[in-house]
Amino acid sequence: MENFYWHNPTALIFGKDTVKELAERLKADGIKGVLLVFGGKGTFKSGAYAQATDMLNSAGITFSEISDIKANPLIDKVREGVARVKAGGIDAIMPVGGGSVFDSAKAIAAGSCYSGDVWDFFEGKAKITKALPIYGVLTVSASSSEVNNIAVVSNPKSEHKTSITSPVLYPKVSVIDPTFQFTLPEKQTVYGGVDIIAHVLERVLDGDEGDELMDEQGYALIRTMMRVIPELIENPKDYDLRAEYALAGAMGHCGFFSMGRKARGDFSSHRMGHSISVLFGAAHGATLSVIMPAWARYLYEDNPVPFARLGEAVFDIYEGSDEEKALEAIEALEDFFRDINTPTTLRELGVKEEDIERLAENASRGQTFGVLSRLEPEDVLEIFKLAY
Amino acid sequence: MENFYWHNPTALIFGKDTVKELAERLKADGIKGVLLVFGGKGTFKSGAYAQATDMLNSAGITFSEISDIKANPLIDKVREGVARVKAGGIDAIMPVGGGSVFDSAKAIAAGSCYSGDVWDFFEGKAKITKALPIYGVLTVSASSSEVNNIAVVSNPKSEHKTSITSPVLYPKVSVIDPTFQFTLPEKQTVYGGVDIIAHVLERVLDGDEGDELMDEQGYALIRTMMRVIPELIENPKDYDLRAEYALAGAMGHCGFFSMGRKARGDFSSHRMGHSISVLFGAAHGATLSVIMPAWARYLYEDNPVPFARLGEAVFDIYEGSDEEKALEAIEALEDFFRDINTPTTLRELGVKEEDIERLAENASRGQTFGVLSRLEPEDVLEIFKLAY
Repeated sequence: MENFYWHNPTALIFGKDTVKELAERLKADGIKGVLLVFGGKGTFKSGAYAQATDMLNSAGITFSEISDIKANPLIDKVREGVARVKAGGIDAIMPVGGGSVFDSAKAIAAGSCYSGDVWDFFEGKAKITKALPIYGVLTVSASSSEVNNIAVVSNPKSEHKTSITSPVLYPKVSVIDPTFQFTLPEKQTVYGGVDIIAHVLERVLDGDEGDELMDEQGYALIRTMMRVIPELIENPKDYDLRAEYALAGAMGHCGFFSMGRKARGDFSSHRMGHSISVLFGAAHGATLSVIMPAWARYLYEDNPVPFARLGEAVFDIYEGSDEEKALEAIEALEDFFRDINTPTTLRELGVKEEDIERLAENASRGQTFGVLSRLEPEDVLEIFKLAY
Repeated sequence: MENFYWHNPTALIFGKDTVKELAERLKADGIKGVLLVFGGKGTFKSGAYAQATDMLNSAGITFSEISDIKANPLIDKVREGVARVKAGGIDAIMPVGGGSVFDSAKAIAAGSCYSGDVWDFFEGKAKITKALPIYGVLTVSASSSEVNNIAVVSNPKSEHKTSITSPVLYPKVSVIDPTFQFTLPEKQTVYGGVDIIAHVLERVLDGDEGDELMDEQGYALIRTMMRVIPELIENPKDYDLRAEYALAGAMGHCGFFSMGRKARGDFSSHRMGHSISVLFGAAHGATLSVIMPAWARYLYEDNPVPFARLGEAVFDIYEGSDEEKALEAIEALEDFFRDINTPTTLRELGVKEEDIERLAENASRGQTFGVLSRLEPEDVLEIFKLAY
C-alpha cells in the first residue's frame, strides 16, 4: 500500500426534505448573496429549483442566476458566471444540478478569485489558490462532484475536455436529497450508474498490489450498483434504491477508493471517453460503457490478474486460468451494460469509421498515459478500433 | 435509508515515515507548544516517541508530557493533563499512542477550554463547545479515535466507563504510520482486530432496512479483517497487512458505516463490554469477543435476518432457513474468535459466577438500551449469563 493524504472537508446533508437545512448554515457563515448555477427544465421538474429559491428567500439571501449549463459543460458558461460574480453582490456559489453544474460552479468559484481568464487553470498556466465557498444541491448523482475537488469542463475551440483539481474546490456543504432523482429520465439513471461503476472499476483495475482492503470495498460497491440500476429502471421512485444510488455516487469518485493506490487509479477510459464527448457530444456514461470493455480487451492478456479478481468478486467466476476468468469477466461486464441498455460500441454513439483516428489523436494529444499499462498513441488507436 | 449528516474534517497522513510531515503543518498553524500524551514503553519501542519529539524539536515547538495513560484510560490522568494545559504554554494536544491515548487527549483538549471539572462532560452536566486542536500520531489501530470525535474514559470512583462526542473533538491531523505497529504484542493485534470487527458488526447487525449498500461495505471490511488478523499473527512485520489493518481500523468507527442507519448502529455489546473493563480491567477487545456472540445467541431467534445475511456475506452460509443460517453464522464467528485466540467466555476473563449480577447492573444502570432489540435489565443479565 502506498502512502497517501486524505482530507475531504465537505459537509454532507443527506436525505429527504433537507434543502431547507442550508438556510441556517448560510446565515451562520454570513452569506448575503449567491450565484445560483443550474441546467434546464430538470431542475424545475425535480422540485430542486423551487426548494432552493424558497430556502434562499426565507433566509433573506439574494441571488443571481446562471442557467442552461449542459452536460459536458462549456468554458463560456463558466466565463459568464465569473463575470457575474465580478459585477458584485455575490459571496458564494450554489450549484443546483448534477456533475456538470457542480463542475461549472467550482470553475466559477475559482475563476472569480483570479484576474486572468479561467481557462488558464485548465491549461496549467495558472494555479488555483482561492475560491468562493460552494453550497450545493445535487439533483443527479454520478460524478461525486458534490463531495470532491475536481471540475471537468470542455472548450469547443480547442476541442479539449479536461479537468482542474485543488483543495479549495471541495464544496463547503452539499445537500443530497435522493427524491430529486425520482424524475430523472431512465437514460440518465443508466448513464450515471455506468459512470459510478467506472469510477470504482478504474481504481480496482489499476494493477496495484497491497490494496485488497480497498479493492474489496470497491467490488462491494460495484455489486451494489449492478443490483440497484436494473431495479431502478423498474422502480424509479423507490426511495431506498435512489438513496443507495446517490450514496454510492458520492463515494465512487470522492477519493475514498484511491486510498493507498500508486496513482490513485487508472483513468484511461475516462480520458478516452472525454474525447468522444467533446467531439461527438456523447453522454459521458455512454462513452464509458463503450470504452471500458475495449480497453479491458486490449490489455487483459498481458494483465489478467485484476480482471480475474474482478470476475471472482463481482461475477462469481471461479473456474479456469486467470486469462480465462479475465475474459469471462469482461464479457460479463459487457453483458451487464447491454442488459441495462447502454451502448457498448462507438457505432451506437454515431461515430463513423473515418472518425476513429481523430478520436485517438484527441485522446492522446501526443502523450502516453495509463497506469495498469502505459498507452502510446498507437495503443489508443487500437482501443478505439476495438470499441468501434 | 435514514437522513444523515456527515462531516469528518480530520486530515489523515497515512504511510511509512510520515511523522515528520507534521512539522510543516504545526508551523503553518502557528502552534508553539504542545502537550504530548502517551502510554508507556510501547511508545518508545515502536519508535513513535523518538520520531514525534525529533519532529517537534526540528520545528522549534516546545512540549510538556503526560505519560502512563493505560488501556481503559482514567479520568484522573485527564484531569492531570487539563491542569498542565491550564498552567500555560500549550496550544495543542499531541497524542502518541492508541485509542486510550487519543481519547484522553480529546478529553484534555475539551477540559482545557472549560472552567469546571472535565468529568461534567461525561455525566452530561456540561456541553463541550470548544477544544484545543489535536495533532496525533497513532501507534495502535482499533478504536478509530484518530479519525472520530468520540472519547471513552473510565471513572473508577463511580465504576463508570462512558463517552463524550462533539464536532470539536475530531483531531485536526492524524498520522498513521503502520510500521509503528510492527512491535505490538500479538494479543494487542488480536484484541484490536476484534474491536475493529465489532465496530462494523454492531452496525450491520442493527436490523435497519434500506442500508444494503453500507451493509455490503461492512461485510467486505469484516472479510478483510478475518483474512488479515490470522496472517498478521504469522507475519507481524508485513507492511501491507499492517497497512490494511490500520486503514480498516480507521474506517471501522469513523462514522462511515453509520451513514443512513436509524440509530447509527447498535452498540449494546460495547456498552456491556465496557462494564467488564471497568470492573475487571479486562482488555476492551477481549470483552467484545465474549459479549458479541452471547448477545447474538440471545437475540437471533427473534431477529434472524441480520445474522443470516452476515452468514451469507461473510461465512458463505447459504443453506437452510434464516434461523439456521443465523445460528451457523454465530457459531462461525465464535470459531473465528477461538482460532485467533481471543476469549469467548467471561470465565476466561476471570469473572466469577457471583460477579454476573453486578456486571449486568453496571451495564444497565437502570436503563433500557439497544436497537436491534431493546434490552431491559433482565435481558442484560441473561446475556451475561450466556456469556459466562
